[in-house]
Amino acid sequence: MRNLNEDTITQAVLARHAGMSNERLREVMTRLVQHLHAFAREVKLTEAEWAAGIQFLTETGHMCSDKRQEFILLSDTLGLSMLVTAQNNSKPEGCTESTVFGPFHVEGSPEHQLGDDIANGAKGEPCFVSGRVRGIDGKPVPHARMEVWQADEDGFYDVQYAGQDEHRARATLHSDADGRYHFRTIVANPYPIPHDGPVGRMLEALGRHPWRPAHLHFMIQAEGYERLITHVFRNGDRYLDSDAVFGVRSTLIADWVRHDAGIAPDGSRVDTPFYTLDYDFVLNPIEGRAAA
Amino acid sequence: MRNLNEDTITQAVLARHAGMSNERLREVMTRLVQHLHAFAREVKLTEAEWAAGIQFLTETGHMCSDKRQEFILLSDTLGLSMLVTAQNNSKPEGCTESTVFGPFHVEGSPEHQLGDDIANGAKGEPCFVSGRVRGIDGKPVPHARMEVWQADEDGFYDVQYAGQDEHRARATLHSDADGRYHFRTIVANPYPIPHDGPVGRMLEALGRHPWRPAHLHFMIQAEGYERLITHVFRNGDRYLDSDAVFGVRSTLIADWVRHDAGIAPDGSRVDTPFYTLDYDFVLNPIEGRAAA
Ligand SMILES: [Cu+2]
Ligand SMILES: [Fe+3]
Ligand SMILES: [Fe+3]
Repeated sequence: MRNLNEDTITQAVLARHAGMSNERLREVMTRLVQHLHAFAREVKLTEAEWAAGIQFLTETGHMCSDKRQEFILLSDTLGLSMLVTAQNNSKPEGCTESTVFGPFHVEGSPEHQLGDDIANGAKGEPCFVSGRVRGIDGKPVPHARMEVWQADEDGFYDVQYAGQDEHRARATLHSDADGRYHFRTIVANPYPIPHDGPVGRMLEALGRHPWRPAHLHFMIQAEGYERLITHVFRNGDRYLDSDAVFGVRSTLIADWVRHDAGIAPDGSRVDTPFYTLDYDFVLNPIEGRAAA
Repeated sequence: MRNLNEDTITQAVLARHAGMSNERLREVMTRLVQHLHAFAREVKLTEAEWAAGIQFLTETGHMCSDKRQEFILLSDTLGLSMLVTAQNNSKPEGCTESTVFGPFHVEGSPEHQLGDDIANGAKGEPCFVSGRVRGIDGKPVPHARMEVWQADEDGFYDVQYAGQDEHRARATLHSDADGRYHFRTIVANPYPIPHDGPVGRMLEALGRHPWRPAHLHFMIQAEGYERLITHVFRNGDRYLDSDAVFGVRSTLIADWVRHDAGIAPDGSRVDTPFYTLDYDFVLNPIEGRAAA
């Protein structure tokens, strides 16, 4: 293995992996090396471009913290996240579709009771969200664990505020015995993905905007069903056809209905206009278990 | 652009780049997205594998500092660096070949006079290095700027010692009016690339050793010639055929000759065994300029 050039290096690297015992790792690494090398060969990557790439990845890494995941943003904006989500979540017709996870989920979001206001001070017009969780057979899914998270009126998630360690507009709830859920929050608005870092500079160089259409994130888990990671998008949003992370699915778009100040669905009086959103989720049973 | 799946996402991402004015950037990004997506599709990358990849890149980024470049190690060990070096440095027969740059070059290494001991306290058996810099036409290249850097007896570069900010076994020299150079240093030994980080864990998972055969790094620049970035490898080294970064070229292998204690080439008396290395470099003229 001496005197390798652009035409012989790929085989030489793969030969080095021949003794690997982990079959799956060998397959993944083989394809990774092949495509990485093919990319560099096809564009005849220059040394300056290579160095710029190293620099870009380094800055992307340095941008990552416990509150910021720049590599997920990179994967999202290059369409890799949606590709991986799509090919791992094909479900029977009628199930709620999955979309990208995004970088803003947080472990251990606060437990709330149905009906609670989960905004916890996050800014925005009131929004009352309700619906039902069912299986594909139509049966309600009781006590499903539902995590919800969203941006505020200014387009920021709680974790994006420096020095603000409270959870806001983020909660863990459980559907009731009939699979029903409801809570109060704020209206979701479109927001730009964080674009003050390397990924933002990349989007700018590519002539792309960083905006996502308004959405609520949901992660729903229930015994006997596949975990569902998805969004509900707001109908009419101007970014539905140009989502920076390619996550929009028609079946996930719902109407946020505007109401004048008055009595809210939970019977409380609201002094400002408010919104309601009704959305039902349909979970995919895990093979041979939901029926049991 | 809604309802994208693994078969339609690639075109959707590329369509987003259609308006880009920078032609080269469009070409590079188009191929990057195509190969990245093809990789993920072909191996049917799972969500857990995707998450492991995000985690790996994040840790690689966090390992990078002004003294450690983990992404260069990653590129080196996956053969990308040698591929890029090879395809950008084809030279006429007879020129000294290039090899990988590596992560241990430092800007502003100390200027030394010919004949100096550049070890500056780095541990190792004495080694006297000499040779000549010429053009492909055989003419000496006077006053060529030569940067040299190497690991010590324990296999570490100066920058790898925490809290040690002195340059050791690293220098900038200039060839004399006849293109000749000579300096004293220490013997180069094989060393493992830094393997206490993500790249080391990757190599271990791949069943690969992290060793590089003994070498001296050189970067040589002279008016009218292409810059040369290369190594001189030590003949007989056990890792010449399994260099962790695929950089070995037969024409770059030279004999390190061992001598008993006694009078060194520079006339000084050495009380221990010492080595000599003689190596000539041949530079490639920049089209139409060296002849002038
Ligand atoms: Cu490819
Ligand atoms: Fe979001
Ligand atoms: Fe080295």
